[in-house]
Amino acid sequence: MPHEISALVFDAYGTLFDVHSVSKLAESLYPGKGSALSAAWRGKQLEYTWQRSLMRRYEDFSRVTLSSLEWACESLGIELEDPSRRVLLDEYRRLAMFPEVPEALERLSAMKPLAILSNGHPDMLNAVVDFNHVRERFRGGVISVHAAKVFKPDPAVYRLAEEQLGVPRTLLGFVSSNGWDAAGAKSFGFRVFWVNRAGMPVERLGVRPDETIRNLGELVDLVK
Amino acid sequence: MPHEISALVFDAYGTLFDVHSVSKLAESLYPGKGSALSAAWRGKQLEYTWQRSLMRRYEDFSRVTLSSLEWACESLGIELEDPSRRVLLDEYRRLAMFPEVPEALERLSAMKPLAILSNGHPDMLNAVVDFNHVRERFRGGVISVHAAKVFKPDPAVYRLAEEQLGVPRTLLGFVSSNGWDAAGAKSFGFRVFWVNRAGMPVERLGVRPDETIRNLGELVDLVK
Repeated sequence: MPHEISALVFDAYGTLFDVHSVSKLAESLYPGKGSALSAAWRGKQLEYTWQRSLMRRYEDFSRVTLSSLEWACESLGIELEDPSRRVLLDEYRRLAMFPEVPEALERLSAMKPLAILSNGHPDMLNAVVDFNHVRERFRGGVISVHAAKVFKPDPAVYRLAEEQLGVPRTLLGFVSSNGWDAAGAKSFGFRVFWVNRAGMPVERLGVRPDETIRNLGELVDLVK
Repeated sequence: MPHEISALVFDAYGTLFDVHSVSKLAESLYPGKGSALSAAWRGKQLEYTWQRSLMRRYEDFSRVTLSSLEWACESLGIELEDPSRRVLLDEYRRLAMFPEVPEALERLSAMKPLAILSNGHPDMLNAVVDFNHVRERFRGGVISVHAAKVFKPDPAVYRLAEEQLGVPRTLLGFVSSNGWDAAGAKSFGFRVFWVNRAGMPVERLGVRPDETIRNLGELVDLVK
């Protein structure tokens, strides 16, 4: 049964854009340590977003991304110096889209206004959107948590999308590959599509996504 | 230089009580998967505390501990059934103290009022304190975040200790092995002693602990 919605909002990293290339790049810079480094980096990056939000010490995502990279390198005994530091951070500006994303965005944008809602700093988001030439797909805008000075899954973040799109939350479809982001959006009141790319168990956070899909291609038949 | 403080507040899990036995128990129940299970469990347990706090969906720590165990088992293809479930959860009620803790508590409690401030549900905390026969060491009380209905590192948690002890935050020494908990306490305004048992890099969260020590034995010479 398709869901009746007025607009679709997408998470960026891991949902539209594949962060796997960060791991490959890390491996080329630090042979034998690439996957450990990227796992430690990504894990710490998310922890810092949650902890800083709770501590009321918001710092923008590009700084959190640098801080967590520094922590991850120190934890693995890696000396982080330019130009490696710059190259690793810049990779977030040129992530590729997942294979099915371009066509899915083309079809969905013909049906509904689309937007992005991401933890990313506006500069990072605009860079990766333009790198992939998909600016025109997002008529609803590219929205960063930076305006709320707190990270997902604080309700203030999801409220940004509701306000910017001018659509009541129950008519807003939210798409994320992160189970905890899907839960946060559902808790706020969105219609939620969880893109479970990795086949992970559903998060036990007291709410469930409305739909679980494996990739964005499946979304086209689920909205009307 | 010793720090002038009026009371000392301790984190519980990983600081006073060693959660390593959980890993050993998991290994005996699920041979070959014990360390993976306990790592996934502990990681998810903490994530849920942060995510639920941000989502304003507090659920007590014993429930979060069960939910995260269920998630971790499913992620590893482990069928979780009683009595294994009960045995694993009960282990949190009978954790051992780290080797230096009994003597350190004896000496410190002769100098200052001591208290515990933990994410743990009051029942879990009282059980492990009584199991270790250290109730009388904590004249300042055994304080659970449950009263604030939010988890660390939200400032409301640290405020509970300040209020219960009736000591201004700058005169309250806070002791934790978790770098992010040390950062949260420092951000709130406590005098912070980070017990860096595992030799981890300091967290990049915008604040630094006042002292970094390797075990609680070192604390005796650092307070006056």
